[in-house]
Amino acid sequence: MAEDSYQAEPDPEREDDAYLLDRQAVARIIYAVDIEDRDLLLKEMEPLHPADIADLLEQINAFDRRRLIELYGVEFDGDILSELDDSIREEVIGLLTPEVLFDAVRDLESDDVVDLVEDLEDQQQQAILNALEHGDRVAVQQSLTYPEYSAGRLMQREVVMAPSHWNVGEAIDFLRNQDDLPDQFYHLILVDPRLRPVGNVTLGKLMAARREVLLKDLVEETFHVIPVTQDEGDVAYAFNQYHLISAPVVDENERLVGVITIDDAMVVLDEEHEEDIMRLAGVGDESSLADRVLETTKRRFPWLAVNLVTAILASLVIAQFEAAIAQIVALAVLMPIVASMGGNAGTQSLTVAVRAIATKDLTGSNVWRVIRREVLVGLLNGLVFAVVMGAVGVLWFGGPELGYVIAAAMVINLVVAGLAGTVIPIVLDRIGVDPALASGAFVTTVTDVVGFFAFLGLAAMVLL
Amino acid sequence: MAEDSYQAEPDPEREDDAYLLDRQAVARIIYAVDIEDRDLLLKEMEPLHPADIADLLEQINAFDRRRLIELYGVEFDGDILSELDDSIREEVIGLLTPEVLFDAVRDLESDDVVDLVEDLEDQQQQAILNALEHGDRVAVQQSLTYPEYSAGRLMQREVVMAPSHWNVGEAIDFLRNQDDLPDQFYHLILVDPRLRPVGNVTLGKLMAARREVLLKDLVEETFHVIPVTQDEGDVAYAFNQYHLISAPVVDENERLVGVITIDDAMVVLDEEHEEDIMRLAGVGDESSLADRVLETTKRRFPWLAVNLVTAILASLVIAQFEAAIAQIVALAVLMPIVASMGGNAGTQSLTVAVRAIATKDLTGSNVWRVIRREVLVGLLNGLVFAVVMGAVGVLWFGGPELGYVIAAAMVINLVVAGLAGTVIPIVLDRIGVDPALASGAFVTTVTDVVGFFAFLGLAAMVLL
Repeated sequence: MAEDSYQAEPDPEREDDAYLLDRQAVARIIYAVDIEDRDLLLKEMEPLHPADIADLLEQINAFDRRRLIELYGVEFDGDILSELDDSIREEVIGLLTPEVLFDAVRDLESDDVVDLVEDLEDQQQQAILNALEHGDRVAVQQSLTYPEYSAGRLMQREVVMAPSHWNVGEAIDFLRNQDDLPDQFYHLILVDPRLRPVGNVTLGKLMAARREVLLKDLVEETFHVIPVTQDEGDVAYAFNQYHLISAPVVDENERLVGVITIDDAMVVLDEEHEEDIMRLAGVGDESSLADRVLETTKRRFPWLAVNLVTAILASLVIAQFEAAIAQIVALAVLMPIVASMGGNAGTQSLTVAVRAIATKDLTGSNVWRVIRREVLVGLLNGLVFAVVMGAVGVLWFGGPELGYVIAAAMVINLVVAGLAGTVIPIVLDRIGVDPALASGAFVTTVTDVVGFFAFLGLAAMVLL
Repeated sequence: MAEDSYQAEPDPEREDDAYLLDRQAVARIIYAVDIEDRDLLLKEMEPLHPADIADLLEQINAFDRRRLIELYGVEFDGDILSELDDSIREEVIGLLTPEVLFDAVRDLESDDVVDLVEDLEDQQQQAILNALEHGDRVAVQQSLTYPEYSAGRLMQREVVMAPSHWNVGEAIDFLRNQDDLPDQFYHLILVDPRLRPVGNVTLGKLMAARREVLLKDLVEETFHVIPVTQDEGDVAYAFNQYHLISAPVVDENERLVGVITIDDAMVVLDEEHEEDIMRLAGVGDESSLADRVLETTKRRFPWLAVNLVTAILASLVIAQFEAAIAQIVALAVLMPIVASMGGNAGTQSLTVAVRAIATKDLTGSNVWRVIRREVLVGLLNGLVFAVVMGAVGVLWFGGPELGYVIAAAMVINLVVAGLAGTVIPIVLDRIGVDPALASGAFVTTVTDVVGFFAFLGLAAMVLL
């Protein structure tokens, strides 16, 4: 059966890189597609996990993708769709025949279907919902009523619970008589008579305990309940902070409505990090190499446009000192150095601040201490580079005055960089703007403007 | 008992932010320390998870930290040490009395002790090892023989395994007769007669199946075996890619030596992301806001030094065109714009490339397609901004020639940015240098040099 086919056997030859989808594998698969040899294709695809097959589809071009999917036919697994990047998911779904799509989707757990359909256009969403059995369809539609990126979208609705007054024997008998336990579950959730979760018992402890032990004496020390409307980023944070394996989800009446497991939280943590990195770099929420040229161009445009405004602002500052530059051209040669150093120091500070805000390490309790630290770091590095650049200025252009000017401007800009790089993300966060997204533009503007102004202004005062 | 004290009860008032350590809580705790009221301190600390207490210790200053730890005394839990940031761990361990330290460490699992001691100086490491019971000490010392950041350091040595020919009944009887099952385990690992792992059975499936069913008929579809020397980053990648919950670890003879669980993999994934973000920003492997000023200054220095060299290189390019600038000062005003836009576009491309390499999405199979895409994106955005800046140039400084020059330089630099931002990380990765660490400096050098050279060179040709 195809579903058992992606077991990775221990294989000493690939110990160092456990990734099955290497360049040769892709080449062999494309070759099988080229010669339209279905048996060969199935043989080559057999060792691949659905996540690897999704990666494969993302890596090859649209033409090969279409031919591969057509040749692969009914082997297409629903998990591949779940793993596929949003950017080509609709395209791939459009390539599947209705029968293949129906089969693929029916194998999925309800939370995977939610994840799959939530970003699809209405027509495809409806086609997939129609493929589901009635019970599953209702479950998926109910999950879709929760806000996007909420715990409600992330949770499984299948929960395994027991009254908190039971003992181990009762729980084991209950579990062994259940027909439809979920595929993956790690805790028995204890509930009170009003279905409010009050504790978690791991299956391992249940296995190990004597039958007469009360469940409430086996509950885990750490027990964390998640409100159904909580943002998925906060859910991932809680799993990471408190080392949760699974956590019950409750509605506004604190009644148990589902459970979130760590594997789903890990995916969210990964996505949030990725998003932060991309936002810090001004890439926008671009998620994939599979995005097309026009799409990518449009996504990157806004940040470049913001940067253009920033750069023009800096130019306006320079324009104030045209007379000085006309007299001493060396100023034009040296001025980008001060701005560039400030920009880099500012980026260092802001990255540390943005991450510390995201991980809740930067709080009201230590904000002043952190700002002071960043300013002092800027001052110290500023002094070191002031000495270096002062010397370079003297050696390169003769007179010591130019050296003094660039040294002073360097110290000023690195202190400002430390200050702006910390205060700007904090302020943005306080007013509800994602600091990862917007800090870069503001901080660079400050360091460019201050860098040029300090250097050229001091030069105009001292040298002219 | 203190150990049961950090259960988070559902509390509607803090639904939106599940984080217990808010500013008020910190202030109340410091107040209790100030008035040396131990009962009040214990009451305020009671709802906090060890991870929260670790955060608290990181957020307050060294003076308060010492006073708090002294007042808190024997309540100090070993898990707090595990959660503490490296930068203050030695300091905190130094503040504990030997008795408190012994008690704290004895409660920990062996993999947590490994994590705790591996970065400590010899004397503290020895003190902690001495506190352990003989069996635990041997286990920890054995783990320390594996390379740092390897699967061997990450794994638990306590495994629960069964012969692959057993049935469910035999497995359940075996588990229920075990005295010392690990606290946390999720799979029964099936092994062949030579102790090589051949499959995983979830405890849930074991619970649900009839006694006569063979274990080998219940194994999970996805089964992934990890070599003990594998890098922890690759381990985390495998957990994330294949949605593993736990995975057996094998030695060079493919014999089972331990097991890694997803919660530990999630911590690694989080750390690797953090490291990537910090490296991309040139912050070095700075891990914490608790680092001191001098330390932070030193860590940030190298990247700023590299940037200074880059900036001086760019200045040398500008110096070649001093004559042109002396004649047309507008060149000095406009030139930073081209370089700045190139730097930003290059950062966008390189961030996408660095992440795609890290997630194994950028491979031999699609490298040329990705490079072509980035160049085309650079070309398209370059054309748009060329029109904008061309117009700005004309309006601001009169004559159309300056507009042509800046427009052409913009196109050139954005294309080069797309090319350099993709090729440089790929080449660095191929020659074994971490692209997250080194790409930025190279790409900025290229975009600065090309930006100034294209703009000033074209200007010298066209305008003089």
